[in-house]
Amino acid sequence: MDRNKLIMASLHDEQCDLVLKNAKVVNVFTGEIVDGDIAVSGGMIVGVGEYNSRNEVDIGGKYVAPGFINAHVHIESSMASPEVYSMEELRQGTTTIITDPHEIANVGGMTAISDILSAAERAAGNYYVMLPSCVPATPFEHSGAELSAKQLAYFRNDPHVIGLGEMMNVVGVLSGDREIMDKLDAFSGMVIDGHFPLGSGKELSAYISAGINTDHESITYEEAVEKMRAGLSVLVREGSASRNLDEIMTGIIENGNDTSSLAFCTDDKHLSDIRRHGTIRYNIKRSVELGLDPVKAIQIGTINAARIYGLRHIGAIACSYRADMVVLEDLKSFKVLDVYKDGKSIKSIPEPVPMKYSRALLNPINFAPLGDDAFKIPVKDKYSVIGIVDGQIITKKLEYTHEQLEAGLKDGSINKIAVVERHNATGFHAAGYIKGYGSIHGAIASTVAHDSHNIVVVGDNDSDMLKACEELRRIGGGYVIVSDGKTLGSLSLPLAGLVSLKSADDLIRELDEVIAAAKSLGVSEGIDPFITLSFMALPVIPEIRITDCGVFDVTKFCFV
Amino acid sequence: MDRNKLIMASLHDEQCDLVLKNAKVVNVFTGEIVDGDIAVSGGMIVGVGEYNSRNEVDIGGKYVAPGFINAHVHIESSMASPEVYSMEELRQGTTTIITDPHEIANVGGMTAISDILSAAERAAGNYYVMLPSCVPATPFEHSGAELSAKQLAYFRNDPHVIGLGEMMNVVGVLSGDREIMDKLDAFSGMVIDGHFPLGSGKELSAYISAGINTDHESITYEEAVEKMRAGLSVLVREGSASRNLDEIMTGIIENGNDTSSLAFCTDDKHLSDIRRHGTIRYNIKRSVELGLDPVKAIQIGTINAARIYGLRHIGAIACSYRADMVVLEDLKSFKVLDVYKDGKSIKSIPEPVPMKYSRALLNPINFAPLGDDAFKIPVKDKYSVIGIVDGQIITKKLEYTHEQLEAGLKDGSINKIAVVERHNATGFHAAGYIKGYGSIHGAIASTVAHDSHNIVVVGDNDSDMLKACEELRRIGGGYVIVSDGKTLGSLSLPLAGLVSLKSADDLIRELDEVIAAAKSLGVSEGIDPFITLSFMALPVIPEIRITDCGVFDVTKFCFV
Repeated sequence: MDRNKLIMASLHDEQCDLVLKNAKVVNVFTGEIVDGDIAVSGGMIVGVGEYNSRNEVDIGGKYVAPGFINAHVHIESSMASPEVYSMEELRQGTTTIITDPHEIANVGGMTAISDILSAAERAAGNYYVMLPSCVPATPFEHSGAELSAKQLAYFRNDPHVIGLGEMMNVVGVLSGDREIMDKLDAFSGMVIDGHFPLGSGKELSAYISAGINTDHESITYEEAVEKMRAGLSVLVREGSASRNLDEIMTGIIENGNDTSSLAFCTDDKHLSDIRRHGTIRYNIKRSVELGLDPVKAIQIGTINAARIYGLRHIGAIACSYRADMVVLEDLKSFKVLDVYKDGKSIKSIPEPVPMKYSRALLNPINFAPLGDDAFKIPVKDKYSVIGIVDGQIITKKLEYTHEQLEAGLKDGSINKIAVVERHNATGFHAAGYIKGYGSIHGAIASTVAHDSHNIVVVGDNDSDMLKACEELRRIGGGYVIVSDGKTLGSLSLPLAGLVSLKSADDLIRELDEVIAAAKSLGVSEGIDPFITLSFMALPVIPEIRITDCGVFDVTKFCFV
Repeated sequence: MDRNKLIMASLHDEQCDLVLKNAKVVNVFTGEIVDGDIAVSGGMIVGVGEYNSRNEVDIGGKYVAPGFINAHVHIESSMASPEVYSMEELRQGTTTIITDPHEIANVGGMTAISDILSAAERAAGNYYVMLPSCVPATPFEHSGAELSAKQLAYFRNDPHVIGLGEMMNVVGVLSGDREIMDKLDAFSGMVIDGHFPLGSGKELSAYISAGINTDHESITYEEAVEKMRAGLSVLVREGSASRNLDEIMTGIIENGNDTSSLAFCTDDKHLSDIRRHGTIRYNIKRSVELGLDPVKAIQIGTINAARIYGLRHIGAIACSYRADMVVLEDLKSFKVLDVYKDGKSIKSIPEPVPMKYSRALLNPINFAPLGDDAFKIPVKDKYSVIGIVDGQIITKKLEYTHEQLEAGLKDGSINKIAVVERHNATGFHAAGYIKGYGSIHGAIASTVAHDSHNIVVVGDNDSDMLKACEELRRIGGGYVIVSDGKTLGSLSLPLAGLVSLKSADDLIRELDEVIAAAKSLGVSEGIDPFITLSFMALPVIPEIRITDCGVFDVTKFCFV
């Protein structure tokens, strides 16, 4: 930062690079809307008031808000490359993303983090990284990599790294596990993200006492407000699968709670959903629809996140802040008219091209041969079945007798689900039953399966399920749909089996096609065929999941 | 911090060191009052809820708020030692002070800062230091020391240092002065305090663009809100001489401004005023009287300051925060019933004893011999007279003809004022005229004179004024009152000629006596004889001052 240049530009109009004339400026510090011109120099805001310059853009009385901040996102879940994703967020007004490359790190370890930090440097928007704390997520599955406290500390001083990513191993924290304490110690003084679904009472207190600062897993107002009271910053999440905003914000508004400990996030959001609604733009707009003051909503989506994460130069339209700004039609539709990043309209930013990623991360589908009876399940008296809960990330543990199960399989209300280790050909694989996915004929499979990203496959017959796994190997990772031995559709995700290297337009089109193909197989209304599937292997969210080691009861921490 | 100990205490009542039972807990995150017990372990809060322990204190339904934070204070202005001052603040509920040892650094330079950091370590309360940025304050006077960017950077990593103290050299900032830019660069990434009285418009923008984060000099609501809009955190000041709270907070309340960019401070407050009203306790109480929601007022005096200064573990009653707490009778009187520091009642803290300070800082009164005509002022057509403004730190520049001056001197409305360099016996001294101090017979002198702390003396005759200077030399620095050649009272301030090493009780008694003696000489009602005097030599606050180099017009930056 050249202080002298900024000082001179503040004082002398003619030294400004750009002036946005006639703006209604959203001031997140005073809570006001202030009429004025916004002066920019060297990518920074140097004044709001009366300014004139050779390079002026007339805002015509529209609103200008600080660029939005997405406080927690796993960009791999969008399947877009970091460069493409950053640009998509920018188009919707989000100039800063705080990401946790947890997914790709579970596949590619240190190599993946190194590549992500290189991509962060190239991204069009501000791109901060919380280093993934739980690789692997649990000891109950096999991921592609393991990251120790020492390895994570290697990246601590990277300028894009601002803390430790969500600490999902709640049991490990509460029991004072040595390796986890080492990780918390290694990032002491930086922000440490939490992840404690349904966290409450003394366990919640202990979790926070360990040094955790944020949480984005609240699904009810009561859960959110208890976490805020206890000292956590609550990131209100509205993603593609987990949509918690309405419940939480309605409570906040009705109870008149202070909002300074809230920020907005998406966690996981599909590219097509982003294109349709935006990310933080949607959270803000929806909060206003629910009755929140528009400036307060914008504060939550901007300066609050900056304060929570200690980012001093973003989140406001004021001197000494980056010229990251969103031009809005009004504070109701929140229609984005233009976005400025470092004082430049994104209209002038070229389409992003993904960098050359490391060879180790490309097409890494490596599972041991599967016999014809790989997914056979022995006959039992009772079966623990994974029950999908509509619109939520949590599942219900259902108990079925053999007769009930047979009936469910027959009427299509129950499917088989399997997970296959795909990183190091260990041969681990497991099968179980799932309810609520839809009455499909065939198999749907994916190499995107939180958090270890083994292959997850669902279907009504073993043959199509096995064929789907082989098809994934052939295309180098991604999504596939197989029915009666035929591939009905597929999406290639060559980067770690998680991420496409296509443009956003191409990826959205391909995704739409593959989702339509999956839906045509009979997937239930209200279920996203692949995202819902991808959460079924995540053994940190209650109540029941499946990993490559077996069906797992999350609340009892045991295989069933 | 022993994470394991805290985690276990959160989970298991019996491992808590202390439980405060039946509290109404002020929650600064949600804006609520929550009934509950507060559990403490290892000096930290480990839970709020239902807790039982062998060591319980029944709060009996009283309010418990986070310990208050004084966001900006020069403790030398209290004349108490750091240890004694910290304890006085603690007794009034302020568990954290953010100090700028600007005064003592102007006398003792690096030695003084080093000693203050040692004292900070011994202080009973949290004691953070902003390193003084302007030693000397201006080139228009002679202080005892000069501190370069390089020298200041020496202390940057001390655990008590959290930033760079108030940057008073506004002209230097706006002109991009090299040495000042070096200082700002040296503390880049840390908080940099500002000081820009009447700062506005493009100059204010430029000042902030240089990297300044806070300001505590606002005297009107309009000034404060412009500074907030422009990006400064505004520290609302209520000291002994500068009382800005009513004006600013009334405007904030009436306009419904967001308060998250506000904190409270005293800047300079007398020990007896602190004992009578408290510091931040008073700011909070008064804001509530003016109509502010009590929890909002407490937020300003606690978590807001912590956030502004990046202090992650103070300012709230929640897990992972220090167990710094104030027990309050109610949220109206804000009567302090007890204070806990690191989970211990201050009733159990022994009376503070000042440490052994460096020899170089003790009794350093060193001025060149003064001739009988040292304070003679030549006859002129016009005189620029310093006009005191009641209850404000600013002065008015008054123009007097020779006849008007003579009349004023005769009727006692005008006095003579002089400043004598007292650090390095350079022989510099200057005299001028002052209006509004009171019709005194004799002289009142002090070695406390912001910011260079030369001798400042006021009187109606040169002989008593000269005698007062010699008396200051004899007692090793402090306050003296002389009339007709006789010393009517004195206060010894052996540490740098600024600070007493006595107990608070003794110092307050001695101060009361010396102030009474000064008042008996005829000092105007509403004027503090010594504090008002101490600001007359401060050439950074408009409009007119006197230094050892002459009478100085602050608005025109020239001697008159």
